Amino acid sequence: MPQEDPWEPEVWRARAMVPHLVPRWPAWLFRWRVACTPGVSMQQKTWVGQSRPPSWGCPPGAAGPSPLVRRGSSSTSSRAPEVALTCKRYPVQRLPFSVVSEEDLAAFERIVPGRVITDPEEMEASNVDWLRTMRGCSKVLLKPRTSREVSHILRYCHERNLAVNPQGGNTGLVGGSVPVFDEVILSTALMDQVISFHSVSGILVCQAGCVLEELSRYVEERDFIMPLDLGAKGSCHIGGNLATNAGGLRFLRYGSLHGTVLGLEVVLADGTVLNCLTSLRKDNTGYDLKQLFIGSEGTLGVITAVSILCPPKPRAVNVAFLGCPGFAEVVQTFSTCKGMLGEILSAYEFMDDECMQLVRHHLLLASPVQESPFYVLVETSGSRAEHDTEKLSSFLERTLGSGLVTDGTVATDQRKVKALWALRERITEALSRDGYVYKYDISLPVDRLYDLVTDVRARLGPRAKHVVGYGHLGDGNLHLNVTAEAFSAALLGDLEPYVYEWTAGQQGSVSAEHGVGFKKRSVLGYSKPPEALLLMRQLKTLLDPKGILNPYKTLPAQA
Amino acid sequence: MPQEDPWEPEVWRARAMVPHLVPRWPAWLFRWRVACTPGVSMQQKTWVGQSRPPSWGCPPGAAGPSPLVRRGSSSTSSRAPEVALTCKRYPVQRLPFSVVSEEDLAAFERIVPGRVITDPEEMEASNVDWLRTMRGCSKVLLKPRTSREVSHILRYCHERNLAVNPQGGNTGLVGGSVPVFDEVILSTALMDQVISFHSVSGILVCQAGCVLEELSRYVEERDFIMPLDLGAKGSCHIGGNLATNAGGLRFLRYGSLHGTVLGLEVVLADGTVLNCLTSLRKDNTGYDLKQLFIGSEGTLGVITAVSILCPPKPRAVNVAFLGCPGFAEVVQTFSTCKGMLGEILSAYEFMDDECMQLVRHHLLLASPVQESPFYVLVETSGSRAEHDTEKLSSFLERTLGSGLVTDGTVATDQRKVKALWALRERITEALSRDGYVYKYDISLPVDRLYDLVTDVRARLGPRAKHVVGYGHLGDGNLHLNVTAEAFSAALLGDLEPYVYEWTAGQQGSVSAEHGVGFKKRSVLGYSKPPEALLLMRQLKTLLDPKGILNPYKTLPAQA
Repeated sequence: MPQEDPWEPEVWRARAMVPHLVPRWPAWLFRWRVACTPGVSMQQKTWVGQSRPPSWGCPPGAAGPSPLVRRGSSSTSSRAPEVALTCKRYPVQRLPFSVVSEEDLAAFERIVPGRVITDPEEMEASNVDWLRTMRGCSKVLLKPRTSREVSHILRYCHERNLAVNPQGGNTGLVGGSVPVFDEVILSTALMDQVISFHSVSGILVCQAGCVLEELSRYVEERDFIMPLDLGAKGSCHIGGNLATNAGGLRFLRYGSLHGTVLGLEVVLADGTVLNCLTSLRKDNTGYDLKQLFIGSEGTLGVITAVSILCPPKPRAVNVAFLGCPGFAEVVQTFSTCKGMLGEILSAYEFMDDECMQLVRHHLLLASPVQESPFYVLVETSGSRAEHDTEKLSSFLERTLGSGLVTDGTVATDQRKVKALWALRERITEALSRDGYVYKYDISLPVDRLYDLVTDVRARLGPRAKHVVGYGHLGDGNLHLNVTAEAFSAALLGDLEPYVYEWTAGQQGSVSAEHGVGFKKRSVLGYSKPPEALLLMRQLKTLLDPKGILNPYKTLPAQA
Repeated sequence: MPQEDPWEPEVWRARAMVPHLVPRWPAWLFRWRVACTPGVSMQQKTWVGQSRPPSWGCPPGAAGPSPLVRRGSSSTSSRAPEVALTCKRYPVQRLPFSVVSEEDLAAFERIVPGRVITDPEEMEASNVDWLRTMRGCSKVLLKPRTSREVSHILRYCHERNLAVNPQGGNTGLVGGSVPVFDEVILSTALMDQVISFHSVSGILVCQAGCVLEELSRYVEERDFIMPLDLGAKGSCHIGGNLATNAGGLRFLRYGSLHGTVLGLEVVLADGTVLNCLTSLRKDNTGYDLKQLFIGSEGTLGVITAVSILCPPKPRAVNVAFLGCPGFAEVVQTFSTCKGMLGEILSAYEFMDDECMQLVRHHLLLASPVQESPFYVLVETSGSRAEHDTEKLSSFLERTLGSGLVTDGTVATDQRKVKALWALRERITEALSRDGYVYKYDISLPVDRLYDLVTDVRARLGPRAKHVVGYGHLGDGNLHLNVTAEAFSAALLGDLEPYVYEWTAGQQGSVSAEHGVGFKKRSVLGYSKPPEALLLMRQLKTLLDPKGILNPYKTLPAQA
């Protein structure tokens, strides 16, 4: 069945092809195998609050949604049953908030009847982060359906001085989405309604708990796409995406959420509902308050609804997966690509060979091109297929001819496009199966991007299992990941502050798109001056004077 | 000389053509005529602080730069020699700031030696706004060159409780850029240096006083373009553009400044320099502070430098100028356009016939197409000329065939493109020559956009000279303008709050892109809830506790 082969080239195939080292299996087969590994049924139980199960493209007979490819499920729990309490692993002191009492639980029950969760097993998935590196000990999880309910909860917590941990899909990578101690967890899982969609303008208004992939499906049925896409799309909530200012795979084309988000509804710490949920592309009536909350990780307010501009669905999508002989060629290919593909370029991602090895080893995904030191994924999205194919062909001809690229394959069929994307999107998952992961999400000048990986690899030597580099090259965004058998303070000491100092030396950012959360809050100073940190602190005090919203996150601990 | 005719069609011409009613003159001829009208030499004298004169494409022998097409010059002073003091025309009370003393002037002279202007004639252009509807009575204008000097000035003014009016190109349309009373004017005119430009990423870092048109020229020479463009480009400063969150002609394609601005340097009210001048596409290290200052009109801080992402220069630009039989057809043409032109669509502007009459009458610009109730300007920008032409031709064929469009012309040659754009860009100028202008800059759902114009026209009848509608239809942004022989409180009473209530009834915005400034500050409540206004006031108090920065602007007067 040749049509089952996701690596069958559609448009172009490199001339000097070598035989593939791994069998070419269809993508659904990989997924099916993964779905059948042990632990699935237990994890499904932990999937509380998901009002509709995400539908995956599983073959008939497969065991339904695969939690292993979905961030937010405790995918690795069969591997590592116990995650240390955050307060045991990291130096952090509980702040003097109140402790949840029986009276508090009764009050919550009056606000969200039947949606107050206290069963420890049911709370497990909300106390532990996706990476399984942090564990809180919250005793209560609340599931409001409306912003009015969120308002009542926050007003109550504010009066009682109870700390609150707002939680979306719990897919964050910096420990921002789980409690550090016993914070009340306020989940947006049941706030999953689309409020409106305008079919001419493409403006979507929805509640904060809508799952990104569900929204994608919803707007794609109406000939639009979401302006953001990321590996965790099957679980992450749009409210959480905004709270972390998620970047992701479409950033290169559609830009930052600061540009595409048109309006927000936010509940402030004292329960005030701030309704800035406009559906207008332009609105200059005073300060643009919504911007404050985009990227503030729930520390300034709880996002309850979102108005976002969706771009028209491209009529043609092509993905090319290329092998490059060196990082200099990766960068040069990018320049060539920008010039030749222009307005149809929608993604430029790279990964090194060590990433490919991990993806192959842990997920059984095969490389569609011959082994190379680097791989590049180029995506085009346009309104006229034949024009796009022509542009892409010229580009590929040029880069292959000049030696920038040594091998490549192109896909236009949706299933094959997805299979190529999976190689890049599932690196995070492969890494998490490799052991304890030290994650760095860095912005750097494009030409120096990979030097950091090389330097860290040399510095750590055999003490690390793997040192890999991949990411959104088109945005100057490197994901540097280091794996080891287990967490080790000594290895951490070798990595930090080295990585941060290196980054600061290049005027880079120590957090490009993952945010600060709990894990990076002490390193903000590497990328921001003291005056900025002071102003951030003042804003926090203004908006949340008691500090009840997502404490221990985003801002450095106060002396 | 047929090549001198800007209306010569390049690609396509409507089939049912009627003879043109006005002579087809080359664009430079119109400009030359304008440049030779009385008053030019006097106005040139008022052009202080422009470190390099903008170079216009005037024919040999013409009298140099034409201030009449450049916002910021007192272009209409020959018409109306006296502008009433703002405090006489509007109900506004001076706040208890100090008055500039001789000691203050001496202190300023120490901070910016030789750049303290007190000559009343020289200050005239900075005390009066471009529309000549507001006049302050500032006695001193300061021209710092560096952010350090700005910091010293603000620290001094903060200590002395002196109010400060930050001023860029003074091209604003809501009275935000001129003093209301005797505020110290802090001009960015000498802060006009490019700091860096990265030729791969297209990231430009420059001082706030760079003139937009100069920056455009600078980056275009390097194969990039500025992500914003507006009629006032010849005078407006990039810092002022950011402070007002200017929208303009490229918004449809490149989006909001909240997305394209990467970093800012801002001097706060007490002189603190807040350096967030990063050159990274992604940076999630804490709250995105720069967003606070974009659109805050100098009331929260003075923007002193900017880092902005410039898109690659398109290799092919086409402009089509079309006649439409009704507004419904304008909207339908837009939908068709989005679908068929997709990613190459870079502007969709509309104007009604009354606009065209004013442009013809006051600026001697001829319509390139037969008389129609509405006109549309469509621009495409792409990387491959033949592809774009093909897409545009299909679109034009379709819209002409279906009767959505009745006549049209297309330009690809740069000079002709400019001539077509002039028809749209110079409406503001034509209006200002028509008499006193009541200006409204409204965001509305696209399909209701023009109803407001029709309703106002019916309501005012012959009491108005002209009621016109034009604007950025692709962004849902209407410019409703009403002209009369002179200012009349009665006519104003007919317009307000009617226009604002009408807009609020459609959940529109009473200020889409021009900002709030002095003139719209009392109407914010039509588009923002009380909770938002309260938070804005709190932010102002946090950042500028003495209220010295651009007082009487942006926020409603306190009771």
